[in-house]
Amino acid sequence: MNRLYHIPLSPYCRKVRLVLAEKKVEVELVEERYWEQSADFLQRNPAGKVPILKIDSQTLSESQAICEYLEEVLPDPALFPKKPEDRAEMRRLVFWFDDKFHQEVTSKLLYERVNKKIMGQGYPESRNVKLGAQKIKYHIDYMGWLLDQRRWLAGDQMTLADFTAAAHFSCLDYIRDVDWNRNANVKDWYAKIKSRPAFRSILADQVPGFPQPPHYSDLDF
Amino acid sequence: MNRLYHIPLSPYCRKVRLVLAEKKVEVELVEERYWEQSADFLQRNPAGKVPILKIDSQTLSESQAICEYLEEVLPDPALFPKKPEDRAEMRRLVFWFDDKFHQEVTSKLLYERVNKKIMGQGYPESRNVKLGAQKIKYHIDYMGWLLDQRRWLAGDQMTLADFTAAAHFSCLDYIRDVDWNRNANVKDWYAKIKSRPAFRSILADQVPGFPQPPHYSDLDF
Repeated sequence: MNRLYHIPLSPYCRKVRLVLAEKKVEVELVEERYWEQSADFLQRNPAGKVPILKIDSQTLSESQAICEYLEEVLPDPALFPKKPEDRAEMRRLVFWFDDKFHQEVTSKLLYERVNKKIMGQGYPESRNVKLGAQKIKYHIDYMGWLLDQRRWLAGDQMTLADFTAAAHFSCLDYIRDVDWNRNANVKDWYAKIKSRPAFRSILADQVPGFPQPPHYSDLDF
Repeated sequence: MNRLYHIPLSPYCRKVRLVLAEKKVEVELVEERYWEQSADFLQRNPAGKVPILKIDSQTLSESQAICEYLEEVLPDPALFPKKPEDRAEMRRLVFWFDDKFHQEVTSKLLYERVNKKIMGQGYPESRNVKLGAQKIKYHIDYMGWLLDQRRWLAGDQMTLADFTAAAHFSCLDYIRDVDWNRNANVKDWYAKIKSRPAFRSILADQVPGFPQPPHYSDLDF
């Protein structure tokens, strides 16, 4: 049986879960309290991070390395565009969310509000929360601008860029940090991706101490 | 003419320069003071980062997206292994250096000592420099352990993982922050990669205010 070591509110784990579900790969989910850095865990991934995927007798880590692997060995359905230049644009946006958006928004909101509490690292720093709440507006506007010209974030085809962005937004939506009224394009985009069967497991996540808000799993939010 | 917007002591720009040189792609280097965020520059890359590569009438950004593109359109010489599982291991290590090593070492040493001065952001924080100097030891040991079992970092073939690591190490070597006596495997590995023709342009870099130390361009360091 394939196995994914993960935590529920990690955008990197969610990105891999979405890709696995789109490609119809069944996987056993195992929660890994990665910050406790058990010896077993560090042997699976010396970088000390989740996600870690056990598949085809391989132990893979780093979400983007995992997603590239899955696309290579299970090309159907394709989550990458065909042309190299379109793939470059898709990867640019994957890193946009996993790097820039993560640094400016996800780490400022989710990590301050949730991860710190779960890891016993004290209270959120309000300066960071304020910064994150400010920056997410700029990112929503940028996505809205992209979606003015394209059906999906990286072009006319749904790709890994959409799942990467949706992985971050779904975590922030869980803690009510997304203003869906800011941009109609972005709301429509999220409604489309949220209604996919691959999203179901993510909409069922429950994090102890952080009750799911009612709109979170509502497809008509 | 292809054009790369870069700064000399950026590991991400150096990674792309090495790949371009290995693949024998001629490119005009243009220094981009990215922290000044000129309007022209932000139009080329709204993320406000270098490297940016103009090639084949495309404007590409994000070093890993660029390297994947170059491997797809110019597969010869191959800098990626053939098997998906070996490519996953290579990408794991690329992200090891570009993410973990960067956060724990490069940003703590290079950014504190060099980038801050160039950008007029004051003096290095000694706490960060100390942390970086401590962490690089662990990374050198880990590389030494990998190189005990493999000819190159990701396997028996030289790959993008080696160029990514060498890009970070060459920047740190420029500011004398690498102890080459710590691990013989790592020193041998760097000597091999440093003597490649693709490395020449990097060994010729001069950064105003930071004179090149004599050992930096010496192949017998």
